[in-house]
Amino acid sequence: MIDVGDKERTERVAVARGFVAMAPATVGIVRRGESEKGDVLAAARLAGILAAKKTPELVPLCHPIALTGVDVLAVPRPRGVEVTATVRTTDRTGVEMEALSAVSAACLTVYDMLKRYERGMRIEALELIEKKGGRSGHWRRPA
Amino acid sequence: MIDVGDKERTERVAVARGFVAMAPATVGIVRRGESEKGDVLAAARLAGILAAKKTPELVPLCHPIALTGVDVLAVPRPRGVEVTATVRTTDRTGVEMEALSAVSAACLTVYDMLKRYERGMRIEALELIEKKGGRSGHWRRPA
Amino acid sequence: MIDVGDKERTERVAVARGFVAMAPATVGIVRRGESEKGDVLAAARLAGILAAKKTPELVPLCHPIALTGVDVLAVPRPRGVEVTATVRTTDRTGVEMEALSAVSAACLTVYDMLKRYERGMRIEALELIEKKGGRSGHWRRPA
Amino acid sequence: MIDVGDKERTERVAVARGFVAMAPATVGIVRRGESEKGDVLAAARLAGILAAKKTPELVPLCHPIALTGVDVLAVPRPRGVEVTATVRTTDRTGVEMEALSAVSAACLTVYDMLKRYERGMRIEALELIEKKGGRSGHWRRPA
Amino acid sequence: MIDVGDKERTERVAVARGFVAMAPATVGIVRRGESEKGDVLAAARLAGILAAKKTPELVPLCHPIALTGVDVLAVPRPRGVEVTATVRTTDRTGVEMEALSAVSAACLTVYDMLKRYERGMRIEALELIEKKGGRSGHWRRPA
Amino acid sequence: MIDVGDKERTERVAVARGFVAMAPATVGIVRRGESEKGDVLAAARLAGILAAKKTPELVPLCHPIALTGVDVLAVPRPRGVEVTATVRTTDRTGVEMEALSAVSAACLTVYDMLKRYERGMRIEALELIEKKGGRSGHWRRPA
Repeated sequence: MIDVGDKERTERVAVARGFVAMAPATVGIVRRGESEKGDVLAAARLAGILAAKKTPELVPLCHPIALTGVDVLAVPRPRGVEVTATVRTTDRTGVEMEALSAVSAACLTVYDMLKRYERGMRIEALELIEKKGGRSGHWRRPA
Repeated sequence: MIDVGDKERTERVAVARGFVAMAPATVGIVRRGESEKGDVLAAARLAGILAAKKTPELVPLCHPIALTGVDVLAVPRPRGVEVTATVRTTDRTGVEMEALSAVSAACLTVYDMLKRYERGMRIEALELIEKKGGRSGHWRRPA
Repeated sequence: MIDVGDKERTERVAVARGFVAMAPATVGIVRRGESEKGDVLAAARLAGILAAKKTPELVPLCHPIALTGVDVLAVPRPRGVEVTATVRTTDRTGVEMEALSAVSAACLTVYDMLKRYERGMRIEALELIEKKGGRSGHWRRPA
Repeated sequence: MIDVGDKERTERVAVARGFVAMAPATVGIVRRGESEKGDVLAAARLAGILAAKKTPELVPLCHPIALTGVDVLAVPRPRGVEVTATVRTTDRTGVEMEALSAVSAACLTVYDMLKRYERGMRIEALELIEKKGGRSGHWRRPA
Repeated sequence: MIDVGDKERTERVAVARGFVAMAPATVGIVRRGESEKGDVLAAARLAGILAAKKTPELVPLCHPIALTGVDVLAVPRPRGVEVTATVRTTDRTGVEMEALSAVSAACLTVYDMLKRYERGMRIEALELIEKKGGRSGHWRRPA
Repeated sequence: MIDVGDKERTERVAVARGFVAMAPATVGIVRRGESEKGDVLAAARLAGILAAKKTPELVPLCHPIALTGVDVLAVPRPRGVEVTATVRTTDRTGVEMEALSAVSAACLTVYDMLKRYERGMRIEALELIEKKGGRSGHWRRPA
């Protein structure tokens, strides 16, 4: 775990996104709140927030960071559920991995709660969307 | 967490796959073992195995299961690193989520160790490949 | 951690209950889903399920147990939120502590999500309601 | 998890209390150190300290905080064991939930170590006693 | 994590031992219960039991196992504190690593609670003493 | 957990060392990368880094600390594998326990991956080598 002791504590934000692709009928189950396992979108949101905090356990070389904010949104779309996570800190390293971990766990939770209704869903395009703060400045994924 | 007490303990296997897409130059860093953070493929493998065991913490409605085997492979391909996880148990529920969690953490670890060399990598197509055992029998993702 | 290797694996169930006492106005915030931190009852339910699985980490002398089912309910009442947890296993020790841990974490989560609206809420009467299976047979708390 | 990045790091303290009600004979077992599972008060204290550190895992929307001090006391009283926890930090959010988690885990541990001697103990009145620091200043539970 | 699905569930026991070497004056602090941080021997015992349960998180290739019993003893000796851990299970793999993890965490806890009194203590001879059950039968460390 | 709120945040470093004694033939397996469980030295390194971050869970009275760097090295020697861990922080307490936990988990991992080749390995001389920062200044273990 690389030494970051010389880096300054600055405000940093990262936004990541992922998508659980599924049939429109399965999206309907989400929208109508009919999953037997409970509210899919609320569970995904909480699983994502918890996973952001667990990042240094999941990704061996990540630094433990005092996150100041984590926001996870799971939104039904015509062909699946889209998850977005925004993570903030005022610390010495960025929170890119925390945002990606949050999205990843939220997508896995969506999948878990719907797998009895559809086999073969796919988690697609887990990626960083935007990153601010630190030496590398402001980056935004090209459209 | 749905009651599975009435289900029988049977042998179950799940295989999942994911892909971290990156530039060929970044794959070269992996192949030559030049990442400053250490051996990318060994770290991905261990992170995946550890994450399989952490699944019930990450995915709120997953049952705690006595996994009998977890195998994670990370292989460099021309356009990225492919991760495959095989999880086995003799228990009352399947290990689909454990295999997907393993792949997910392994992909995040690959990403983390290479993000200084390439911005904007993408984790693609996290999906179940095969599943055996339990009521639903043998399933294989259509090619 | 006392040796239970000689005990038989039998079906066991435990039901526990707790209550977060609060002003009727605060209960109204829960009922109308107006807490700024999100859906209180869904969060309490998930926090309870996760805590049941974490019991052997929280209570030092508890055995790790393969839980087969965990059900947590959080229901608004005129003077607070009532939480009930039902935990099942087929194992060598009872799941009383798992049910109590689930209720405890669910109550703490209710408290956390509402503390900005009311100071001085109180978690009351965390207790076992019913227990089945194992040497001690069926027990029910006297009314 | 609400963003607290704009809040100042200030010194904060929270004190919480809980009570495990039991028969005087069971209190006697505690006082004389006769529980078969070991020293009840020492175990409760350590379980409480460990749980304070685990709060962000147990209560989904709690921020991870660098606790500077945790003190847990478990004291036998005529009708049960009283637990008090004092938690300190110099950070952006209060430590109310950390103090309540500590008390909660300490009470569960007392219960676990004594349940073979008395059925039907009850954890009562888990509550905040005092809170200092941060925007809301000094609060003390009215007597 | 090697597949053990074909192995039989049998009763297995492992006993491990470790030693924290220190000056006789420091042992005196332990014996008289004068450590400012609390009861050293009780804390070591609990830390050891908790660590046995955490073994699959600490040692990446260890299987998660349903431990049926964990017993940790910490005993003051003329030149240090000796720790012994006995771990039992009825499962498909041995519990050697669980016994060693328990001893290791117990020794670290002894060290932590005494480091203000003596600099330069050393943890010595962490080793397996005895192992029973499974394919390899009964093994005892030669005297 | 003793209150450190009055201590200053200063840069602190701790270096610890441990040794897994084994037969030269077993060292040969490590050197040639022939262990069936995978790359022993890479696994030890990652297990050590992860354990440093887990220290406050393993050692009950340790403060949670924002580690800024962790470096773990596992090196084959004629009669065993030597592990060294260097941990850095800018915080209110030292990182001695974090360095020792890292070494301990790395040694256990070496042991686990080689135990099928040699029975009766021993973890020896887990000790602090050097410590800088904080009130006690610079300390180095006498040769």
